[in-house]
Amino acid sequence: MKENPSIAIVGATGVVGSEMVSILEESALSCASVKLLASESSAGEIYGFRGEELVVETLQERSFEGVDVALFALSSNLAEKFVPVAVDSGALVIDNSSHFRMKGNVPLAIPEVNGASVTDKDRIISNPNCSTIQLVPVLAVIHDLAGLKRVVVSTYQAVSGAGKGAMDELWEQTRSVYAQKEIELEAFQHQIAFNCIPQIDVLLENGYTREEFKIINETRKILDAPGLPITATAVRVPVFNGHAESVNIETEQDLSVEALIAALDSTEGIVVYPSIEEYPMQLQMTSQDEIHVGRIRRDESVASGFDLWVVADNIRKGAALNAVQILQHIMKTV
Amino acid sequence: MKENPSIAIVGATGVVGSEMVSILEESALSCASVKLLASESSAGEIYGFRGEELVVETLQERSFEGVDVALFALSSNLAEKFVPVAVDSGALVIDNSSHFRMKGNVPLAIPEVNGASVTDKDRIISNPNCSTIQLVPVLAVIHDLAGLKRVVVSTYQAVSGAGKGAMDELWEQTRSVYAQKEIELEAFQHQIAFNCIPQIDVLLENGYTREEFKIINETRKILDAPGLPITATAVRVPVFNGHAESVNIETEQDLSVEALIAALDSTEGIVVYPSIEEYPMQLQMTSQDEIHVGRIRRDESVASGFDLWVVADNIRKGAALNAVQILQHIMKTV
Repeated sequence: MKENPSIAIVGATGVVGSEMVSILEESALSCASVKLLASESSAGEIYGFRGEELVVETLQERSFEGVDVALFALSSNLAEKFVPVAVDSGALVIDNSSHFRMKGNVPLAIPEVNGASVTDKDRIISNPNCSTIQLVPVLAVIHDLAGLKRVVVSTYQAVSGAGKGAMDELWEQTRSVYAQKEIELEAFQHQIAFNCIPQIDVLLENGYTREEFKIINETRKILDAPGLPITATAVRVPVFNGHAESVNIETEQDLSVEALIAALDSTEGIVVYPSIEEYPMQLQMTSQDEIHVGRIRRDESVASGFDLWVVADNIRKGAALNAVQILQHIMKTV
Repeated sequence: MKENPSIAIVGATGVVGSEMVSILEESALSCASVKLLASESSAGEIYGFRGEELVVETLQERSFEGVDVALFALSSNLAEKFVPVAVDSGALVIDNSSHFRMKGNVPLAIPEVNGASVTDKDRIISNPNCSTIQLVPVLAVIHDLAGLKRVVVSTYQAVSGAGKGAMDELWEQTRSVYAQKEIELEAFQHQIAFNCIPQIDVLLENGYTREEFKIINETRKILDAPGLPITATAVRVPVFNGHAESVNIETEQDLSVEALIAALDSTEGIVVYPSIEEYPMQLQMTSQDEIHVGRIRRDESVASGFDLWVVADNIRKGAALNAVQILQHIMKTV
C-alpha cells in the first residue's frame, strides 16, 4: 500500500459514510486525496476535511479512476454492483455491506481480533455487521483464555443501525405520540416509538432473522471457529444510537470472574466496569471508540458461565471506525 | 371461602391496584362488598364499580374488620407491616409484593401452573413478580413435555412495572428531549428516555440484581424445581407498558418445534404465533389477558434447544389479573 493513498468514501452522506469521513479526518492516516461519492441526490453537498472543502460527487462506474482505497458504506445491492467496479479499477475495497462477508476468499476483519487474516493479495475486505463487531473482541478474549463452549446473545439495537431515515422515524413517531397524530411507517414495519421490534432484517425459513444469522455466522468466521455453538435474538429498541447486548457465555475451562475482568481490562479497545455498581448504557456511547463491558457476573446455571452486558457506538466501532481501523492495519502491515 | 366474600383492595390507586379494581369488576366473581384502601393522600378518590361508587379509604390497622379477602398491591415495606394485620383480622391475603414470596410456608401461585400448592390452611398467598408470571406458564408446558435442562432469559421490561411515577418520568423525560430541557431523575437512577437501563431493583453482592434473583428463584419455586439451571438479565426499556423476554431453553428430551407449538397452543392463557412472519410486541399487549409467544425457533447450538419471544401485559397477567385468578382458583377449589 502506498504511504499516501488516494481514498474514496462511497456512500459518504449516509450515517456510516459521514462518520467514516470524520473518523478519517481525525485519524493520523495521511492520504493524497479524499473523494466523497454518493447518489445523485446528495451530489454537491460540501464536507469540511482537514481544512479543505470536499464536494460530494455522484457515484458512477468511472468514479474509481486513480483511487487506491475505497471505503464502501452502501446497501448490499449497491455494493454488489459497485465493489467489483472499484476492484477492476485497481482499488482495494473495504466494504461495510453484508454482501461479500461470508465469501471464502474475502477476509472479514476486526483488526485486533483477526488482522492476520488480511493479506496483500486481498482486493476486498469486509467489515462485519455492527452487532457482531462489538461482540467478537469480547468473545475472542474469553476464547483465548478458557475456550468458548456456547454463547447466547440477545440484542438491544438502536435505530441508527437502520440509517438516517430510521432515526428520523423514531423522532417523528415519538412526536406523533405526543401530538396524538397517526404514526407513519416507512423504515420499520411496526411502530418503534415506545416499542421493541423483535425483527431486524428479513426473516429466514429456519425462523431466525438475517441479522441473527449474521451474528452467528460472522462470529464463527472471525473467530475461525466454524462449529462454535452460538444463538442470537436481535431486537430493535427505541434508542437513537448505541447497541447493547446481553451475552451469556459458557467456557470449556473454568475461569474466575476476576481473571475474566483482568483479561478484558488489559485488552486495547475494551473498557471494563469491574464494580457491580456501574455499567455502560447506550445513551453514553455516542462518539466512544471502545467496546464497553459491564454487569460481569458468574452464571451459576453451568459449570463455568458468565453473563455480560456489552455496549458500543454501533455507527463508530460497529461500522465506520472498524473500517478505518482495517485500513490503518493494512497500511502498517500489508 | 364464602360464596360472596367481602373484598378489600389495598393500594387501590396504584398502577396494579387500580387494574385489580377493573379486573375484579369485569370478572364473574360475586362479592358482598368491595373496600378500596390506599394512603391518606389518595383517600376520597371515587371509583365506579358495577354501578356503585366506591370511595377510597385511608389504610389503617382497623381497615380489615369484616374483610374476607384482601388483595394487596403495596410496596414490600408496607406489605410487611399490613399483611400480618389483615391476617390477624381474619382475612385471606393475596399479596403482590415480593416480601413473602420465598417463605417456605407461603404458596407462590400461578393458578394454571401450581394451583394445587394452595390449600385451605393458607392465610397468605403470594403473587409472583411480573417478569416471572409471564415466563413460568411457558416454561411449565415445556418442562412437562420434555424436561427443562437450562433456561437463559433476557428481559425488555416496561416502565409501568415501576409504577405510575415511572410512567410519568418516561413521558416527561421524552418531552424534555424534544424541548431541549434538562432531564429530571426520580423513579430511575438514569435517563430512561431513548435509553435502556440494565438494572431493575437493587444490585446484589453476586452481581445479579434483585429482579434477576426473583426471576431465578421464583421460577424454581413455582415449578418445584429447586435446582433448575436458569440465569437472567433484566433490562428496563423505554416502553410504557408490556414486558418482553428473549428466552433460550434447553430441554432434556428432544422435542420438535411443531410439538412445542402444538403444546403451547393447546394451553389456556397462552397465545402462540406459529408463523415466523408474525410475532407479538409490547405495544399491542395493554389489556391482553394472555401470554403471547412468538419467534419460536430451534436453537442449533445445543442438542435440543429453542429460542422464544414472550410478551405480556405486565400489569395485567403480570400482576393484577394473576392475583384475581388466584382468588377465583381459591373460590372454586379451596
